[in-house]
Amino acid sequence: MKVDYTRFLSGRVSYIEPSPIREMVSKIARKSREAGVISFAAGEPDPDVIPRRVYGELAREVFEDKRSVNYSPTEGVLELREEIAAFMKKYEGVSSTVENIIVTLGGSQALDLAARLMINPGEVVLTENPSYVNTVLDWKQWGAIVVGVKMDENGVDTHELENTVKKLKRDGIVVKLVYTIPTGQNPSGITMSTERRKHLLEVASEHDLLVVEDGAYNYLVYEPVEVRSLKSMDSEGRVIFVGSFSKVLGTGLRVGWLHLPEELAEKFRAAKGPTDMCPPVPSQLLVLQVLRRGLFEEIRNRAVEAYRRKRDLMLRAIEEYMSRLKHTKPIAGMFILLWLPSHIDGWKFSEEALEKYSVAVIPAAPFFTDNSGKSVIRLNFSMVPENDIEEGIKRLTQLIKEKSPS
Amino acid sequence: MKVDYTRFLSGRVSYIEPSPIREMVSKIARKSREAGVISFAAGEPDPDVIPRRVYGELAREVFEDKRSVNYSPTEGVLELREEIAAFMKKYEGVSSTVENIIVTLGGSQALDLAARLMINPGEVVLTENPSYVNTVLDWKQWGAIVVGVKMDENGVDTHELENTVKKLKRDGIVVKLVYTIPTGQNPSGITMSTERRKHLLEVASEHDLLVVEDGAYNYLVYEPVEVRSLKSMDSEGRVIFVGSFSKVLGTGLRVGWLHLPEELAEKFRAAKGPTDMCPPVPSQLLVLQVLRRGLFEEIRNRAVEAYRRKRDLMLRAIEEYMSRLKHTKPIAGMFILLWLPSHIDGWKFSEEALEKYSVAVIPAAPFFTDNSGKSVIRLNFSMVPENDIEEGIKRLTQLIKEKSPS
Repeated sequence: MKVDYTRFLSGRVSYIEPSPIREMVSKIARKSREAGVISFAAGEPDPDVIPRRVYGELAREVFEDKRSVNYSPTEGVLELREEIAAFMKKYEGVSSTVENIIVTLGGSQALDLAARLMINPGEVVLTENPSYVNTVLDWKQWGAIVVGVKMDENGVDTHELENTVKKLKRDGIVVKLVYTIPTGQNPSGITMSTERRKHLLEVASEHDLLVVEDGAYNYLVYEPVEVRSLKSMDSEGRVIFVGSFSKVLGTGLRVGWLHLPEELAEKFRAAKGPTDMCPPVPSQLLVLQVLRRGLFEEIRNRAVEAYRRKRDLMLRAIEEYMSRLKHTKPIAGMFILLWLPSHIDGWKFSEEALEKYSVAVIPAAPFFTDNSGKSVIRLNFSMVPENDIEEGIKRLTQLIKEKSPS
Repeated sequence: MKVDYTRFLSGRVSYIEPSPIREMVSKIARKSREAGVISFAAGEPDPDVIPRRVYGELAREVFEDKRSVNYSPTEGVLELREEIAAFMKKYEGVSSTVENIIVTLGGSQALDLAARLMINPGEVVLTENPSYVNTVLDWKQWGAIVVGVKMDENGVDTHELENTVKKLKRDGIVVKLVYTIPTGQNPSGITMSTERRKHLLEVASEHDLLVVEDGAYNYLVYEPVEVRSLKSMDSEGRVIFVGSFSKVLGTGLRVGWLHLPEELAEKFRAAKGPTDMCPPVPSQLLVLQVLRRGLFEEIRNRAVEAYRRKRDLMLRAIEEYMSRLKHTKPIAGMFILLWLPSHIDGWKFSEEALEKYSVAVIPAAPFFTDNSGKSVIRLNFSMVPENDIEEGIKRLTQLIKEKSPS
């Protein structure tokens, strides 16, 4: 009997939207095999800034440890959790014990796990608009209705956010979760002001919300300003902190963590166990060595210097060639958002940029929770070689001109 | 305002049972720091059989590759998928293309993903009784009602399985999935006969079921018998094959795969993307090197020889000291199930064995889907040093005597 698989694809997760960005990235990967492609499409650190030779040496030691090839606890290698607890104190100003820490497969698994335990189908989750497309797609798989709240250069508009919560409440809809990337946000590059952070926590307290703080870009801050994590200002236990070493140490390692109130940590650990057994152990032990030897700070400093230079080059080129176009001016992270003239479609532009000008960019529309991102593109500055930046911006400028009425 | 987290823990996944085995394993880990503990509790290969020094050398090369620190596609590094497709031909007699292969975080993520897409709350899934506790716990998180079907030395009783399907059908309950570990099953060590395998596929065809075949132990077969995977006999596309390198190359690496009909693969890939971004890349590239250099076969042969010897020692000791006790005689895998005299509780026995005799075993009760496993314990022979085996069995024999009426 021929199988009709439709009947079998009826699991709880019925909403599956393939990531449009992922498809774009595949197309770019194929095209990039040709020489001369300048890519502003990445969402990753520069593999040449990461000391891979040192990793190679450390890996030899890692595999001398018998534990490297066996399971670790699902919550991670104990010593790594201890190091992460100390890291949370040093980098986030958050006191914690190992009981608060669960090591995860990058931030992604942490966010998926949070949804697994906390989102009921049909519930509303508030995010920044735009927000990180993978979290939105993942949480939609769990049945969340994602409502975006507008941002400006100071981050998400927390008054608007409060109004949204109130309005939904009047309609009988209770909001439980807010998802935010307060520092160097993906895709906008925007960093939330301290005032807004405080207000967000007040709103959370007032309306009994939990805040999921995605700190993926927290260690890539380019200006000498104090950026305090929401978690460090959280006196009530309302913030679930999702940490990641990906953007400094490498996304491929897949090492992130959850910092949770102990009550939640116990439940998260129990739920996580059978889903994965444990995070990859060689990666965990490698990161452990990096932290123990104080290499994180060194690698981070190198990354900050390199990406600050690249950011400056990109901003300068944008200001020189596209001075009339609205764009963000990130003090952290890896991205600049660029608003093309409104008659230009970001998707078509991205495809033409790749085909005709060999420049890869990401259309930002999928990051927006409404239709306001149609003419917006996302530019990454961390992975592209310095020397390509001005040339890439020039080519994009040329394409904009071509597509504009003379 | 003090947070009441109860309100927030209302996600789709409401059934969360911490793994009792995991807690036992933690207790054993603490106790094992004391000298002299003999552990039959593992579910893993011996880290000294795995060539960790070679891994260390390969890892240096892995980190020379820029890709090692960046994301791979969610379905895995292309070259690794090509190697796995060739591996499926060589080791499983299954022709496939890369389109059938999705690399996963060990078998665990593969099984969780299958449930994510295919299990609707309240649906019945058939498993062997006993079955692998982590899959059962995971699938219960997804709302499955797990119904076990009795096993004998030839594997699951497929006639009983067919009757169960029919009986449920009469009650208006449709079964969609069967979960099986046909070779060297965990916890029983039993390998399903070829006849039963054929019959299981006939039943699947007759009643329109999909079979999830967990091949975790497929590469640890100790007798010169032909053991054919269900997938290799599957002419209708009814088998989802879950593969894993864990039991030969190391569980800590977390590299497994799904072999899926293309129609399903596309959906699984789309669903997986936002949940993890990708499997750990250094682990993927390490396994790629191992496969490319033909090292898998070498490591596997070494493992088979070592574990065969250990199995023989354990079986001999059991037959010498506990000849009246029922136990399985595995031709594959890592486990022997041992039925204690029925007045002995497996949980209490396991605790006393650890406390009083410094021998770690796993109570098998949590693996059983009914109450028939109360006096059963699981013994692992792959990880324990050869010299400890007889002594461990002697100590267990002593404890059984102590607990038995004289």
